[in-house]
Amino acid sequence: MNKLTTPQTLTEHDFSKGAAFAMDAYVPADQASVSVMDWGFNKSDVTYDVVHVWDGAFFRLDQHLSRFERSMAGLRMKIPYDRDEIREILTTCVRLSGLRRAYVAMLTTRGVPLPGMPRKPSLMTNRFYAYAIPWIDVISPEVQERGAHLIIAKTERIPPESVDPTIKNYHWGDMIGALFEVEDAGADNAVLLDRDGFVTEGPGFNVFMVRDGKVCSPDRGALEGITRQTVFDLCDALAIPFETRPITSDDLHAADEIFTSTTAGGIMPAARIDGTILSNDRPGPVSVRLKETYWQWHREGRDATKIDYG
Amino acid sequence: MNKLTTPQTLTEHDFSKGAAFAMDAYVPADQASVSVMDWGFNKSDVTYDVVHVWDGAFFRLDQHLSRFERSMAGLRMKIPYDRDEIREILTTCVRLSGLRRAYVAMLTTRGVPLPGMPRKPSLMTNRFYAYAIPWIDVISPEVQERGAHLIIAKTERIPPESVDPTIKNYHWGDMIGALFEVEDAGADNAVLLDRDGFVTEGPGFNVFMVRDGKVCSPDRGALEGITRQTVFDLCDALAIPFETRPITSDDLHAADEIFTSTTAGGIMPAARIDGTILSNDRPGPVSVRLKETYWQWHREGRDATKIDYG
Repeated sequence: MNKLTTPQTLTEHDFSKGAAFAMDAYVPADQASVSVMDWGFNKSDVTYDVVHVWDGAFFRLDQHLSRFERSMAGLRMKIPYDRDEIREILTTCVRLSGLRRAYVAMLTTRGVPLPGMPRKPSLMTNRFYAYAIPWIDVISPEVQERGAHLIIAKTERIPPESVDPTIKNYHWGDMIGALFEVEDAGADNAVLLDRDGFVTEGPGFNVFMVRDGKVCSPDRGALEGITRQTVFDLCDALAIPFETRPITSDDLHAADEIFTSTTAGGIMPAARIDGTILSNDRPGPVSVRLKETYWQWHREGRDATKIDYG
Repeated sequence: MNKLTTPQTLTEHDFSKGAAFAMDAYVPADQASVSVMDWGFNKSDVTYDVVHVWDGAFFRLDQHLSRFERSMAGLRMKIPYDRDEIREILTTCVRLSGLRRAYVAMLTTRGVPLPGMPRKPSLMTNRFYAYAIPWIDVISPEVQERGAHLIIAKTERIPPESVDPTIKNYHWGDMIGALFEVEDAGADNAVLLDRDGFVTEGPGFNVFMVRDGKVCSPDRGALEGITRQTVFDLCDALAIPFETRPITSDDLHAADEIFTSTTAGGIMPAARIDGTILSNDRPGPVSVRLKETYWQWHREGRDATKIDYG
């Protein structure tokens, strides 16, 4: 562990824009890179997770670590670091950066094949990376404040039969297509449907609607988000009924409120979906209550892992 | 152009394992890397092409460059190099490596977002990379000789409604799933079906069958391979009838012959598909004739762009 926590060359580096752990060394985040030969790049054969740091503490760190371990197992990946070592590496990245509010990523790539090696993923040595960079809002605070304008994308979500969405992955070709639709429509973000017309998720976030006081989220085709689970926990705590079920675009258009959730932003209310205006064109009352309680939980230090910045 | 063709620091490097053009400089291929913040990595927002060099000459270089330009246009990407400059960069990579038989890749990533930039792909500055490394056989020469043992994967190909397969991309999650099925089955490689049960392609290659003397290849869900086009040109030259049409797994099981095609290997015959033995468990006569003529065309210097190694 000493090798990981007290590297020798750290004083040479400027970590103020973020710190990374790459190829078993700590480097400034903007120097962390992946070989163009790594299958994690040239076959997107990689899984990752993102946990956030808010006011000097990780939020629900162990849930993210558990999911990351499940994702690696699902892709038959192994790394030489156990959970305590991963936690230590993430903490060191944050400590080196000095960031009090951070986006902290961990990822494992399939690795680089040796010359002449048969094309068998099981033969390869997987590579672990991590980095802490300044907090990112997937949807900007100004847009969150007025309520995001969403569209339902024509691009279909990659189906679970091809790529398992519960294993967090970088297969974003469909999401990028949707983001171009967003730009063309002058909107803020998009929701993607599956082949059968059911709502799945958006680029980096889960989707929720509120109808007659009940919170609903898709039961299929989406990442099992940690923030999504936090929304359910918030509903429990606030005695708001909730369920997961199939949701169509018609359901979204008829919703009283829509909001999205992600680690990089929290709970983000929407105000419009396609041409339809929701909640008088502003964040709805249930969405706002959930959002405020989400941040209150942060202030109360719930599910927090404090970081010792030394 | 001088900047690109006569870099100053080249003598410091050992290019014997391959040469790359990365971030506007020539480096040994194993040092070429992409930032973990580049959407080309963390959203697989990247397109690429691969051309091969055989005995000191590119094969069908301009067809690959044309497709690469179409792929970039399809993803709304722009780079500061025109076709002549790309050709020059690829040639320089090969010349630096000294390789007479090489796998030569060109790729464009979406790039790295600036801090605080909204998540709009159109705002980003795209990045171009290229590299030449020793020739790769997607299916080893020994396996090509005896005829590959293929399986039809249970993992479904990512559908065109989600990611356009005619834009060459690194979304290989479905292919990796299929490669694990291959390992579990003790086979050599896999063919993937679409949601409707029609044959698409395999990990890095197009698929063909021969039935009653006619060559058939899928009309959907697959890359429009340059080597696939060469197969059609070979059929024309050899007066072998061919067509593209929907092909089912039953069609493959009832085929007289099956072969695959790719830049990194050429025309590669199969001998088995699932439990079914084809052509007396060896490469079939039409497949072998096409393969031999393919390499004869190389020896004759057809469609060749000779490289001046200086």
